[in-house]
Amino acid sequence: MLDFNFKNPTNILFGKGKIAAIKEYISAESRVLVLYGGGSVKKNGTLDEVLAALQGYTLFEFGGIEPNPSYETLMKAVELVHKESIDFLLAVGGGSVIDGTKFVAAAALFEGEPWSILEQGGATVQKALPLGAVLTLPATGSEMNCTGVVTRKSIQTKLPFQSPYVYPIFSVLDPEKTYTLPVRQVSNGVVDAFVHVIEQYLTYPVNAKVQDRFAEGLLLTLIEEGPKALETPMDYEVRSNLMWTATLALNGLIGAGVPQDWATHMIGHELTAMHGLDHAQTLAVILPNLLDVCRQSKREKLLQYAERIWGITDGDAEQRIDGAIGQTRQFFEQMQVKTRLSDYGIGKDSIPDLLAQLKAHGMVQLGEHQEITLDLSQTILERSL
Amino acid sequence: MLDFNFKNPTNILFGKGKIAAIKEYISAESRVLVLYGGGSVKKNGTLDEVLAALQGYTLFEFGGIEPNPSYETLMKAVELVHKESIDFLLAVGGGSVIDGTKFVAAAALFEGEPWSILEQGGATVQKALPLGAVLTLPATGSEMNCTGVVTRKSIQTKLPFQSPYVYPIFSVLDPEKTYTLPVRQVSNGVVDAFVHVIEQYLTYPVNAKVQDRFAEGLLLTLIEEGPKALETPMDYEVRSNLMWTATLALNGLIGAGVPQDWATHMIGHELTAMHGLDHAQTLAVILPNLLDVCRQSKREKLLQYAERIWGITDGDAEQRIDGAIGQTRQFFEQMQVKTRLSDYGIGKDSIPDLLAQLKAHGMVQLGEHQEITLDLSQTILERSL
Repeated sequence: MLDFNFKNPTNILFGKGKIAAIKEYISAESRVLVLYGGGSVKKNGTLDEVLAALQGYTLFEFGGIEPNPSYETLMKAVELVHKESIDFLLAVGGGSVIDGTKFVAAAALFEGEPWSILEQGGATVQKALPLGAVLTLPATGSEMNCTGVVTRKSIQTKLPFQSPYVYPIFSVLDPEKTYTLPVRQVSNGVVDAFVHVIEQYLTYPVNAKVQDRFAEGLLLTLIEEGPKALETPMDYEVRSNLMWTATLALNGLIGAGVPQDWATHMIGHELTAMHGLDHAQTLAVILPNLLDVCRQSKREKLLQYAERIWGITDGDAEQRIDGAIGQTRQFFEQMQVKTRLSDYGIGKDSIPDLLAQLKAHGMVQLGEHQEITLDLSQTILERSL
Repeated sequence: MLDFNFKNPTNILFGKGKIAAIKEYISAESRVLVLYGGGSVKKNGTLDEVLAALQGYTLFEFGGIEPNPSYETLMKAVELVHKESIDFLLAVGGGSVIDGTKFVAAAALFEGEPWSILEQGGATVQKALPLGAVLTLPATGSEMNCTGVVTRKSIQTKLPFQSPYVYPIFSVLDPEKTYTLPVRQVSNGVVDAFVHVIEQYLTYPVNAKVQDRFAEGLLLTLIEEGPKALETPMDYEVRSNLMWTATLALNGLIGAGVPQDWATHMIGHELTAMHGLDHAQTLAVILPNLLDVCRQSKREKLLQYAERIWGITDGDAEQRIDGAIGQTRQFFEQMQVKTRLSDYGIGKDSIPDLLAQLKAHGMVQLGEHQEITLDLSQTILERSL
């Protein structure tokens, strides 16, 4: 096991009707900005429930945060925060809204140009406004971690940042709030959580037995429950299991003390920034080919994954690895997320620009061994066509 | 899944040499009381390492906290805290020292007779001194939870208390610090952690898939690594896995959203208080018989446990349950912890007094269904002879 520090101070309020409890976590004299996305939380009543729970507070609203929240939009929220002397942010939505809210929290108190929070080698966040979240889409784990990803549309760039100051103080996880999600978002969420686990699990062995078992438990749950969420969308137990699984997939726990990869995410971010693919779509395209290309350096864990997750014990090692990668792709397709660039209308001619963006963003030595050079990214992208 | 709130703010510093980092978590002007047990941390150098890491602080020491820390001893520490205006407590030791330190933290700021913190229906802790921990014995999970158990020797009573104010601010988990533990403590630690998981897992199903998988991952790790710690005590990887497993076994995570039992612990506490058995010894004695007696109400989870933990799939349901209980007992014996009251010189004539103490402490409806009445406790104790 590798050395690690682990702390996660977010208060999880899990279950039906928990929105009513958020008042206990926000001081009464706060000036609260409620941030949300495209308006689904208005239509399905979640926003009303939140506003009712906050009766008596001085409330402001900021809607319109996009999937892959944009710097341009978020900076308008920062302006509102300054203008209205907001001192608490409440995200109501999925990972994009929560990520965006984290950025607003940090940018509002940042001295200088907030874009530098996101740039490689850029500024470190030293403080942030306190924030909470009401989660409506299990997927990114943003509700219980200190990471945000922001896109600057004008330069087609999507970059992550981290800071202990942006852990949500609380996050409400009410599985009923996910009933009305479109199929595409449910599918994307399952694939996203699955790949989060893989990025922290499918690297090289460090004999971290608990982390491995926990990661495998999350993967098995996603495989069992993901398809059910498409078949029987109003099943509370299925939604509960998916919601808690997606949170635990990226709250720091299974990644503590083990190597981490994240190359699939970094290559995927370029696909989203340049071609507008959903985040999970990019992961479903890249991951199977990345595993194939890195099959030597990931060999031992791939064999463990084949056996413990997919029950593959027959055949030689290469066949078992092929089987596991094939099952992974098939699971994504079963979740209705396509796994080829061509499925999204992207051809070979796009690859040079994608590589140029990877280079521009410093993504030239990715993965747990920093072995994924631009050449290897090219191979992965070509195999993904 | 049941509704739950989950928050655990303890900062875990895991790995070799992490003691050196504790300074970052204690403000420089603090008056620090370092609490420890029988002196092994003096002999093996851990205390010196802690004191060296705290150079420049105003330091006080309080040694002599017993296994099953006593109210009588801890109240002397409270006196010292008051006398020297201590404002930070640092526990250096195992679960007993950390439990005791938590009680000192709460009792020092408590108005009235601190024993009422422990009594059933007693006082709620409203504040506590901040505390940290340097763990030397993986077992109780106290290093990352908000529970303490204290014994009042004069009335042979051992009772737990809980308060969010007594989470350690940080806990150092350096696996090397466990190399010098006596075999008996290593064995006890593995059994203790194992039963902590069982108390939160072997109840009735609520379709909490992740919690089940996580619990199973901890059990499998203890079964794999526990015996190795006896065979090759200086193996860093084995010690690492055991240390992190014991912490996760009782930090609130696997118990969030599921029913919990804890009857084995409550009956076991009486055995410790009246007959001086080690905590883990009491658990090893009681658990197999409790599972047997409650085999109907725990039926579904016992079958899941038989299959996923012990690989038992042959035979009818009763046989599979018998097999799982037998394997459990055998594992405790393999860990060199005896599983019969007679192994500890306790006979049938002790049972009436044990039942009287359970009654006196309000432990008359134990377990996840409150089905374990005094009559059932009597049956369990008789079968444990």
